[in-house]
Amino acid sequence: MTNEINTLPQGYTFRRLKVTDYSNNYCETLRGLTTVGNISSEQFEDLFNHWTSLPEIYRPHVITDTNGKVVATGMLLVERKLIHECGLVGHIEDISVYETEQGKKLGIYLVTSLAKLAKEAGCYKVILDCSEENIGFYTKCQFKVCGVEMTQRFSN
Amino acid sequence: MTNEINTLPQGYTFRRLKVTDYSNNYCETLRGLTTVGNISSEQFEDLFNHWTSLPEIYRPHVITDTNGKVVATGMLLVERKLIHECGLVGHIEDISVYETEQGKKLGIYLVTSLAKLAKEAGCYKVILDCSEENIGFYTKCQFKVCGVEMTQRFSN
Repeated sequence: MTNEINTLPQGYTFRRLKVTDYSNNYCETLRGLTTVGNISSEQFEDLFNHWTSLPEIYRPHVITDTNGKVVATGMLLVERKLIHECGLVGHIEDISVYETEQGKKLGIYLVTSLAKLAKEAGCYKVILDCSEENIGFYTKCQFKVCGVEMTQRFSN
Repeated sequence: MTNEINTLPQGYTFRRLKVTDYSNNYCETLRGLTTVGNISSEQFEDLFNHWTSLPEIYRPHVITDTNGKVVATGMLLVERKLIHECGLVGHIEDISVYETEQGKKLGIYLVTSLAKLAKEAGCYKVILDCSEENIGFYTKCQFKVCGVEMTQRFSN
């Protein structure tokens, strides 16, 4: 399967997350996805340093606009397994496009780019979980339904 | 939600994976789940050392029988996220019960124990992906359907 990646609007960039993205709309973009809460710059830096210390596992990416502002976010997590001859599996997590930037196909570019990174990293597959409403979107990103996501939530 | 964990048969133990489990039916148990391939002791040790160097992320567990032989396997992977106030999410992966040991409720014990470990680690939720046929089993383990798993496979 070839990944036909659409193009980004002129001046937009897909790149790895930087520590300076804390004050560059990163958390605000994620708020479109779910609850984020109040993250201090120290908490962000601690998490960023943790992710950066494990670059083969955590591969957080963003798309920035013509002003360099973060307008879309996505994580590729690469897991080392024993099955499939010590195979690697990519997990795509926390895809979010800033609300005023929707309709520009940034999401498709982001997901397809993360899938390409997973392939380049040597993963035998990349997976993600989504809601029923998003099946159409991820089908456009060349994903196929393969199973059911189940959860157990903890109230602390 | 309380986790009512059933009990193991007498003499059976739930514990973390050990490097010596290579020659103790670990790979054979995983073969019941999917393709494993030929894993040499060096490959196993390399993977085991990788997992062990990241004990907060990779938490591979097994159930052993009265002879200490591995009869069930399961991985808890703990991911650090930004969302949910820098929350932790547990991923349960690669659950397998050795074929001659099925019917003893080892699977329920294993999954419930891994979910309990996720809760103790501070995760706000634990998730897993499964096939339609296994929804009933994971419902017994106190999981609920919450989404769809999608995949893109790479042919190398």
